[in-house]
Amino acid sequence: MQTKSNQHNPEHWQVVAEREVFTYKPWMRISMQDITLPDGRLVENFGRIQLPDYISVFAQTADGHVIVERQYKHGVGFVSMNLPAGMIEPGEDPIKAAQRELKEETGYVSDQWTSLGSFVGNGNYGCGKGYFFLAQNAVKVTDPDSGDLEDMEILLFTVEELLEALSSQKIATIGAVASISLGCMALIGIINPSSED
Amino acid sequence: MQTKSNQHNPEHWQVVAEREVFTYKPWMRISMQDITLPDGRLVENFGRIQLPDYISVFAQTADGHVIVERQYKHGVGFVSMNLPAGMIEPGEDPIKAAQRELKEETGYVSDQWTSLGSFVGNGNYGCGKGYFFLAQNAVKVTDPDSGDLEDMEILLFTVEELLEALSSQKIATIGAVASISLGCMALIGIINPSSED
Repeated sequence: MQTKSNQHNPEHWQVVAEREVFTYKPWMRISMQDITLPDGRLVENFGRIQLPDYISVFAQTADGHVIVERQYKHGVGFVSMNLPAGMIEPGEDPIKAAQRELKEETGYVSDQWTSLGSFVGNGNYGCGKGYFFLAQNAVKVTDPDSGDLEDMEILLFTVEELLEALSSQKIATIGAVASISLGCMALIGIINPSSED
Repeated sequence: MQTKSNQHNPEHWQVVAEREVFTYKPWMRISMQDITLPDGRLVENFGRIQLPDYISVFAQTADGHVIVERQYKHGVGFVSMNLPAGMIEPGEDPIKAAQRELKEETGYVSDQWTSLGSFVGNGNYGCGKGYFFLAQNAVKVTDPDSGDLEDMEILLFTVEELLEALSSQKIATIGAVASISLGCMALIGIINPSSED
């Protein structure tokens, strides 16, 4: 099943004008686009939200636990479970960002990395791209020093506990659901990430 | 493992000021907040992105296939796989929106609905909430009539084909990855959605 089309696909929308309406560098750029649909109709003011690309790491320790962060996230409004994650620095390779953030946020390093894919945050507006990774055989080499605004608690979960958290809807963000689901399915062997990305 | 805290949790950030910087009703409201962290530090201009809440439906037909839409999404920039999804109308119950959108976009109805959870689009900024549902025993009763800007092709996938699409990173958005993963895991029996939501 082919899903990626090239830039000349007839179904592609054409941007005929774009107006920046708000920018707060380097975090956010909002613009409005006027677009021509494939059938010729003009759509005015279709929003575009540019946010920084980021990485998320599903890291399994050498003894089989998964590293989870429990922290308040302001977009959620309460304390919830997340995976180690962070912005990609300008010019930084996503895998390098993943290795850097895992070590900064948790103190763990890994020598066994697999891409779980890269995904757009919002199909309509964009909202940045997340690069998801599986890190295995992770070992703790230092103390965490994330520099993040949020205090966080580092927890170790079994895959069974993560699946229970998904079942009981205890995970608050779409990104955490996606990355935890992919990681669990990869470890169980239901998916086999091909690392083509 | 308790993850939801109440509104008085000491880790909760306090919003001390908010400035609306861009609004395009009913689609988008962007504001900047000044926030006091639990340790007393002031953070100025933390972004908040309000987008409409929406539903996404993982619908399995009576003969065991999953209904997938193949369409161009402008936030992605190419043709990709999605599940039936759409905005929740003002005052509309999420399950009613899910039933309405499934019928409008695909022509299918179902008498067997399970909540897979509701999830915030972006842990930092918000970006709307998605309500994900599993619909089983779906039957086609009419032709699709979505009214969406995008042309779409309706395809029927087996669970195995969806897992292969996840493995080979053919799914383009975090929302589609999350909802397809939850649906597949529920059908396989790896998670057991409790429908507490």
